[in-house]
Amino acid sequence: MRIVRESGESTPASLLVGVDVGGTKIVVGAVDGQGQVRNRVQLPTDTSQPEAVLLSIESAIRQLVEMAGVDLARIGGIGLGIPGEIDPVNGVCRLAVNLGWRDVPVTRWLVETLRVSCPIAIENDVSAAALGEQLYGVGRDIANLVYLSLGTGIAAKAILAGKLHRGIHGLAGEIGHTTVLPDGPFCRCGGRGCLDAVASGPALARVAQERIATGVSSLLQQSATPLRTEAVFDAADQGDELARQVVTEAATHIAYAIYQLAMTFDPQVIVLGGGLALEEGLLTRLIRAEVARWAERSPVFNIMYAPGLIRLTALKRDVAILGAVALLSH
Amino acid sequence: MRIVRESGESTPASLLVGVDVGGTKIVVGAVDGQGQVRNRVQLPTDTSQPEAVLLSIESAIRQLVEMAGVDLARIGGIGLGIPGEIDPVNGVCRLAVNLGWRDVPVTRWLVETLRVSCPIAIENDVSAAALGEQLYGVGRDIANLVYLSLGTGIAAKAILAGKLHRGIHGLAGEIGHTTVLPDGPFCRCGGRGCLDAVASGPALARVAQERIATGVSSLLQQSATPLRTEAVFDAADQGDELARQVVTEAATHIAYAIYQLAMTFDPQVIVLGGGLALEEGLLTRLIRAEVARWAERSPVFNIMYAPGLIRLTALKRDVAILGAVALLSH
Repeated sequence: MRIVRESGESTPASLLVGVDVGGTKIVVGAVDGQGQVRNRVQLPTDTSQPEAVLLSIESAIRQLVEMAGVDLARIGGIGLGIPGEIDPVNGVCRLAVNLGWRDVPVTRWLVETLRVSCPIAIENDVSAAALGEQLYGVGRDIANLVYLSLGTGIAAKAILAGKLHRGIHGLAGEIGHTTVLPDGPFCRCGGRGCLDAVASGPALARVAQERIATGVSSLLQQSATPLRTEAVFDAADQGDELARQVVTEAATHIAYAIYQLAMTFDPQVIVLGGGLALEEGLLTRLIRAEVARWAERSPVFNIMYAPGLIRLTALKRDVAILGAVALLSH
Repeated sequence: MRIVRESGESTPASLLVGVDVGGTKIVVGAVDGQGQVRNRVQLPTDTSQPEAVLLSIESAIRQLVEMAGVDLARIGGIGLGIPGEIDPVNGVCRLAVNLGWRDVPVTRWLVETLRVSCPIAIENDVSAAALGEQLYGVGRDIANLVYLSLGTGIAAKAILAGKLHRGIHGLAGEIGHTTVLPDGPFCRCGGRGCLDAVASGPALARVAQERIATGVSSLLQQSATPLRTEAVFDAADQGDELARQVVTEAATHIAYAIYQLAMTFDPQVIVLGGGLALEEGLLTRLIRAEVARWAERSPVFNIMYAPGLIRLTALKRDVAILGAVALLSH
């Protein structure tokens, strides 16, 4: 969605700005016509109050423009990926728990604060990432792809026939909050046994922590608490049995979700992204192996399965910035 | 997809023909401009060889035209819903197990046999039904709907942004062949514990039969074998504990699938159709109750949930014929 302010005279658009709005940091990047991130500014997110987050975004954009040595009036468009429920038509963030946002008119605020006349687009961050992969990453020329974000949270957003499928409430693909273990751990969404609660980054750390507390022997007993997700992966790479078990269980849940996504969407490619899947590693190897096992066991899935069905994000950490910019041309 | 034969002069199109190609019977109907089925011919399907099925279709169409008192040249279009994998662009049925078909050029055969010049469209039967509901049934003015067919088989086909989502292999929504019970019964697809193998019509009868064989007391002990699905529902309606248990288990599996479809597509409506869901009854009531429980347990699903989310087919048994005709305008 774009809000275009009337402008007396048009200025040549030379800079597209992508904003990755996170609960702990805001990363803003300038993207050139070739889809390369040219400049980058990162600031901590001030979530003390809703306006503070907006001020952090404004500040980051102003610093980026200064760094790039151009005028705000030369910005060709601003895209923002936001971890929450978005109303892209009205430019409003309906709910973003990690930002403390509810019904925040992001687009209007930016137009008024930055006094820019360029298009501004906002969208859910995983949706933006999916569009980013399609436009700049593994999805070039791929009309049907599912982007599965594995990180602090889990969600899968689909590009179908070249278009983002949002669903009626913008909640399509929020499979992180589907219960997969009815008696499993409680989830921050208020549900129980959600995929997010058993296979996200924080879930991996929490499950490992709980098992250590029961007295199971592990390298992780030496780690600082609260346990970090990275510590679990490090221990698993060193052969720690507890850590490997925790990662394996998460991979099993994620692989089943991928199998279901495939059976539901029959996509050309499922792109894995997010903090847990930036590089091939134990988790992605275990996921791939388990998905391959589903293909052996499930004849219909076998028809659609090929090793190339699952690919890692080509854009890595830039997926959020490039995805935000991709919104401007969707 | 349409193959239009060149015609010297155009004849006014007065009759649209929908063909419901089933493994046991073929039903052909004439549909008027108001979406009403005016005439109907039903013939048993001769599956002795692939050509025999085609001859059954041809015969049914010829009988229908005769009954309607019009000339074949007056047919405005023929749509066929076929229970299998379809290549609609080339008018070929890639695979239809129940018809004994593999790579059958349905459209070309009909054009040559009937010598008609009208558009002919073929599609998977559940996909056609989804389009039929959208065009003529509960889905009027609904751009995002999922049609879940519960009958001899189980599949869910989605209309998204007004268009049928087929998937790369036409297998999108073949959730009947997703494993839901890894150690469950073997499925006719060659997989194990598929939704189809635990919740389809034949599965209900088979599960009940197996439990009776273990000596559990039930009204069904008086029923003829092999047990029919209807006998299970009749017994359940009479309060038979075994039958109710079997229906309840199927409803639980189907409700979880509906919950997952909703979380994945976030549709306006999920339409239940197929032989098990033509009317409200024990199964649909149990499904609705269990889906409502998921809405209570799952906060994100609760946002999208409303009692109107799940609706029964408005077209009932005509959904296949009307869906086949809907293909002609998609």
